[in-house]
Amino acid sequence: MSKYAFGVDVGGTTVKLGLFSAEGALLDKWEIPSVTENDGAAILPDVAKSITEKMEEKGLKEEEVAGIGIGVPGSVDQDSRLIGRAVNLGWDSIDIPKTLNAYIKVPVKAANDANVAAFGEQWQGGGKKYKNMVAVTLGTGVGGGIIVDGRILTGATGAGGEIGHLHLQDGESEFCNCGNRGCLEQYTSATGIVRLARRRLAEDGKPSVLREGEVTAKAVFDAVKAGDDVAIEVAERFGDHLGKGLAIVAAVVNPEAFVIGGGVSKAGEILLNFVEPNFQKYAFPQCRGAKFVLARLGNDAGIYGAAALVLSENG
Amino acid sequence: MSKYAFGVDVGGTTVKLGLFSAEGALLDKWEIPSVTENDGAAILPDVAKSITEKMEEKGLKEEEVAGIGIGVPGSVDQDSRLIGRAVNLGWDSIDIPKTLNAYIKVPVKAANDANVAAFGEQWQGGGKKYKNMVAVTLGTGVGGGIIVDGRILTGATGAGGEIGHLHLQDGESEFCNCGNRGCLEQYTSATGIVRLARRRLAEDGKPSVLREGEVTAKAVFDAVKAGDDVAIEVAERFGDHLGKGLAIVAAVVNPEAFVIGGGVSKAGEILLNFVEPNFQKYAFPQCRGAKFVLARLGNDAGIYGAAALVLSENG
Repeated sequence: MSKYAFGVDVGGTTVKLGLFSAEGALLDKWEIPSVTENDGAAILPDVAKSITEKMEEKGLKEEEVAGIGIGVPGSVDQDSRLIGRAVNLGWDSIDIPKTLNAYIKVPVKAANDANVAAFGEQWQGGGKKYKNMVAVTLGTGVGGGIIVDGRILTGATGAGGEIGHLHLQDGESEFCNCGNRGCLEQYTSATGIVRLARRRLAEDGKPSVLREGEVTAKAVFDAVKAGDDVAIEVAERFGDHLGKGLAIVAAVVNPEAFVIGGGVSKAGEILLNFVEPNFQKYAFPQCRGAKFVLARLGNDAGIYGAAALVLSENG
Repeated sequence: MSKYAFGVDVGGTTVKLGLFSAEGALLDKWEIPSVTENDGAAILPDVAKSITEKMEEKGLKEEEVAGIGIGVPGSVDQDSRLIGRAVNLGWDSIDIPKTLNAYIKVPVKAANDANVAAFGEQWQGGGKKYKNMVAVTLGTGVGGGIIVDGRILTGATGAGGEIGHLHLQDGESEFCNCGNRGCLEQYTSATGIVRLARRRLAEDGKPSVLREGEVTAKAVFDAVKAGDDVAIEVAERFGDHLGKGLAIVAAVVNPEAFVIGGGVSKAGEILLNFVEPNFQKYAFPQCRGAKFVLARLGNDAGIYGAAALVLSENG
């Protein structure tokens, strides 16, 4: 009987690893650097080596390990194959289980990192009560992960839940990283909030603490908490964009809950106060019951969800 | 071993019924009127009576029937219960299998009619090759049905796939039937196309055959085929709205294909020529491979999908 699983979250700078019990308890976690030179060819061998060492350290046998789950910053299909490039790693179209199994002989499952983080929040975090949920990660970009009946919605090419790139706004002059213009991400990521603030500040000379020092998403929400009118206007525009975007998502997948995470969500519950009323304004009536909750696992969501890939019957 | 199944598509005027083989062949189909008086209380007893008579006529025993699948114009949850009202029938929050099983003792499954039609197209129609697809029904309204890994995406309250009501356009002055403003349906349903035509005709006095006779969605596409410039402009605006809307849907569920049906789709392949290029313009790069195909089952999609609810392992 398998008693343990490893969850691995591969990023462009570090690889996070976690050892979990079959019941979902995080027993140990650690990091190794992501060696992206030479098209990231060393990353998976390094992961295998690190896990092998951990198994030796803990005295674990292969038959006690349900497997290794891996979250990857790229499009991963249902057979754990990377489709196209994972730009931050240097990888291109690789079969992740096959590559890893050359070094370590336990079952391997891989999926997109945003989807995996969503799965982690659904398994042990803010979305634990919800079999149908959408995780929204507001970071440098906007990531999404959709869980339907307890399963990750992967999509045809692993781009399921790419809600940061749904077209929200006509007439946008600046380009999104994806090459389109008017994506949700352009207004609701950390950099999107800076964009909104910059534009608001340029409209007039109204005094604001945002005119002093660097404008960041954190500075905007700190100013909101201090009662700064201009910052509140920026937060309202952010909330209108995100509320509208999530109302659109709700008309498609009708979730029980949105679980909001990522660096921007560190602003706390106040963030939801700007988003939820706008969601209600735009949402199809039968979708208005969706709950808004904050993510709970922080940077560990990825390793939790990765472990769940091999531990959950729906993984 | 069950050899047969019944598929039932309950509408506000008629109930369509079909007898199917376990392999998915339509063996017989017929209709009965929908008696909506008295909150539609007679509809399910009438369905049971009609099926019982058909079983007697064909000499079928209950153990030969896998069950009865039913598509209903309302939100139906995963336990086949109607959530809230089915306005066109007069029903309110009923347990459909329980109600029907008072009259006939075979397994019963129910689902939303648009979702059921999508399931039918995926089972035996235009979407047969695609495990991940979105069916789009362009009729009086715009319905949608989403199939993920061969299963209907029902959503938390049965509103999964309500893509006609995703917010597409800010600043719309007219209200949608759902009470919101700017829904996809307001520009891409049969009545939406008439709205676009009416607005275009009001802009100037440019000659067009659309200025003679009644403006309908069919008249617009007939005029497009005849080379009418104004009609082509209207079709381009329709295509921009629908292409944009489906690009948004693709960023959420990343389907392999969109299967386009409903009365408006009778315009044929020419319709897709206006939609697909606009989809490509707005779609997230990794979602651009989605195929566009016309629905094949027409008005029978509902009875096919309903039968599939009880015959398919994913129903």
